[in-house]
Amino acid sequence: MALLSTPCPSAMNPAISQLKPYAFTQLRSRQDAMPGVRFVDLGVGDPQDETPAFIREALVAAITPASRYPTAAGLPELRRAIAGWLTRRYGVAVDADKHVVPANGSKEAIYNLAPLLLDDPSRRRTRELIAIPELAYQVYGDSATMHHAEIFTLPFDRHWLPDLNAITPAVGERLKLIWLNFPNNPTGAVAPLSFYRDVLELAGRYGFYVASDEAYSELWYDAPPPGLLQAARDTGFRRAIVINTLSKRSNMTAYRSGFIAGDPEVIAMLKNVRPRMGVATPEFVQRAAVAAWSDEAHVEAQRARYAERRALFLDAFTRKDVAVEGSEAAFYLWVRVPESVAGRNSFQFAEHLFERGLIVLPGGFFGPRGQEYIRIAFVPKIDVCREAAAILERVLEEP
Amino acid sequence: MALLSTPCPSAMNPAISQLKPYAFTQLRSRQDAMPGVRFVDLGVGDPQDETPAFIREALVAAITPASRYPTAAGLPELRRAIAGWLTRRYGVAVDADKHVVPANGSKEAIYNLAPLLLDDPSRRRTRELIAIPELAYQVYGDSATMHHAEIFTLPFDRHWLPDLNAITPAVGERLKLIWLNFPNNPTGAVAPLSFYRDVLELAGRYGFYVASDEAYSELWYDAPPPGLLQAARDTGFRRAIVINTLSKRSNMTAYRSGFIAGDPEVIAMLKNVRPRMGVATPEFVQRAAVAAWSDEAHVEAQRARYAERRALFLDAFTRKDVAVEGSEAAFYLWVRVPESVAGRNSFQFAEHLFERGLIVLPGGFFGPRGQEYIRIAFVPKIDVCREAAAILERVLEEP
Repeated sequence: MALLSTPCPSAMNPAISQLKPYAFTQLRSRQDAMPGVRFVDLGVGDPQDETPAFIREALVAAITPASRYPTAAGLPELRRAIAGWLTRRYGVAVDADKHVVPANGSKEAIYNLAPLLLDDPSRRRTRELIAIPELAYQVYGDSATMHHAEIFTLPFDRHWLPDLNAITPAVGERLKLIWLNFPNNPTGAVAPLSFYRDVLELAGRYGFYVASDEAYSELWYDAPPPGLLQAARDTGFRRAIVINTLSKRSNMTAYRSGFIAGDPEVIAMLKNVRPRMGVATPEFVQRAAVAAWSDEAHVEAQRARYAERRALFLDAFTRKDVAVEGSEAAFYLWVRVPESVAGRNSFQFAEHLFERGLIVLPGGFFGPRGQEYIRIAFVPKIDVCREAAAILERVLEEP
Repeated sequence: MALLSTPCPSAMNPAISQLKPYAFTQLRSRQDAMPGVRFVDLGVGDPQDETPAFIREALVAAITPASRYPTAAGLPELRRAIAGWLTRRYGVAVDADKHVVPANGSKEAIYNLAPLLLDDPSRRRTRELIAIPELAYQVYGDSATMHHAEIFTLPFDRHWLPDLNAITPAVGERLKLIWLNFPNNPTGAVAPLSFYRDVLELAGRYGFYVASDEAYSELWYDAPPPGLLQAARDTGFRRAIVINTLSKRSNMTAYRSGFIAGDPEVIAMLKNVRPRMGVATPEFVQRAAVAAWSDEAHVEAQRARYAERRALFLDAFTRKDVAVEGSEAAFYLWVRVPESVAGRNSFQFAEHLFERGLIVLPGGFFGPRGQEYIRIAFVPKIDVCREAAAILERVLEEP
């Protein structure tokens, strides 16, 4: 039959076959397969501390007998709370209606950004580029791949900052979007304000967008790190798109609440398209989010918890003469694999620690540039972190 | 400068300019612009009755001090509750792990389905088709447009069923997906089991997927309407994708909780891709959903409420000799505009009612085929419905 000779139209999006396995799903499976073993988990960067009671109470108080469909533009109170927080945090004037929309968590905001910006692939001679740092959160690349963009891998310089020299004119002209993420996952590095200015200068020259995932912005130890909006204040946030979340700041991973802020043209577009996408956040979650963005005391308390855990590991590594790079902010330490491990192989070192009951992420998992590092997420309670530090110290003492 | 002569790479997805305004956002704006006026609103199909207390209590009980990131595959308890409900409701054997994933509401599930199935547009000589009935929920078409598919408009026959004769070989070979929606929005029509069988037969012949939005499946008055899974039982649900939600069944629009069920290949693909998309539902909402899918008494009570309101309007229209078509299920009546209105123009009739304080949706808003009809959503409490019926009767008595 003639029909059967045409390419099978029931095939799914062919980009799916290019996706790497989703790492955290894999990690959970491996642990679940060993139910008798107790692991100390410094692998997944999931906050484990409590969501403050006043936030949970705000959620419960907002559950009404009858309710209506939430809007994608969000409650005006939530947009005002976010704009107010951004204004206080970065000293820039953020308008609740022109510069902000809520998101159903930052992963949703990240995954859904590229398809709203990318051109129709059938209209292009060459694919548009999305620039992603060589070690990065998996979702930037998965979204680019699924939406038929080409990934341009940005190398890091020796300070773990993307090397902007890689954006040559040939690259810049095809670039639609660049992803930044400081404080960085996995390195914990922080970018200076001048770096954001340099990126925006390039964006203006070539006409691409700059998306900055600032999920870890509040987990700092010395001084609050700068953000993209500060660098974009004099251009009315043009080409600047910031994504942030309550997951880390307020221990609210379970709630799925974040925001997108910046370029008023992009925000207007999001207000047009997002009501069609099913990304509206339940109003009771939005009410909890209003409470969370309006309070800083709980964030200070959380920073103090992380600072104690961080100091514990930094101390252990210093005593064992193990190098820690980046690691200025976020709840990660980016630790060089010791020389005693053959080829400083991060997978081998992580496997060795796994066998001793300690889970860390091998840097090689993020890409070749991470091969000689492991990522430690100091999210467990201080007692568990002490246990982990003891395992690390014992392993580092092994001949 | 040479750079400026290239097509502006900062342009957004050009499909955005093809989107029609999102109707419900517009309708809200028009009401908000007249703050002094009290409207009886039979326009938007948003349930107004209470979410049963036991469901709200299940949510509150599931809010824990600490919590972790929810998974896109959902709690096993939720998948089991959904599979159990489907098995009881349709008499088909649904496996909780092979045939079901939860969704963050049905709009999310609908919007996000097409891009996971469509081919890379740059690989095709002609665009893939997505078939959408000529009067339909806006999101099917918006998702197709945003993802660069071509919409094939399926005409209705005189029973308000899509006319499958329109799927000629030339259409079928390019077809990726067909959207069905029974009980139907806006007509309230119900499809017989034989119709689903006919569609699946075509799907097998040409190799396209059948997506059935069954959001209104539980709002029936005579007998429970059949669903796509019943017609697909003998083929292991191959090519069949059912989407349903708690929004209408359990008055849970505010909670954003639904599911996708059917073809095990599609479900396996969704379990691979959806963890990257940020569509995981908060666990406290999933716990409320487990309670909701496990109880039928509250659904029966809700059906009784709608039945009373429906009878009230049917009675009024019968007395005034106004024709009601379709309208077998869902909370809609599909009412022919009376002859007294020039050209039976639905916009003119809706405007006339608006001026008298009653909001209905003009059928012409859904497309030319709806031009001589209005859609009445009998969602308000019975007292408000009585008020609405009185306005309607007065208008129909006008000379």
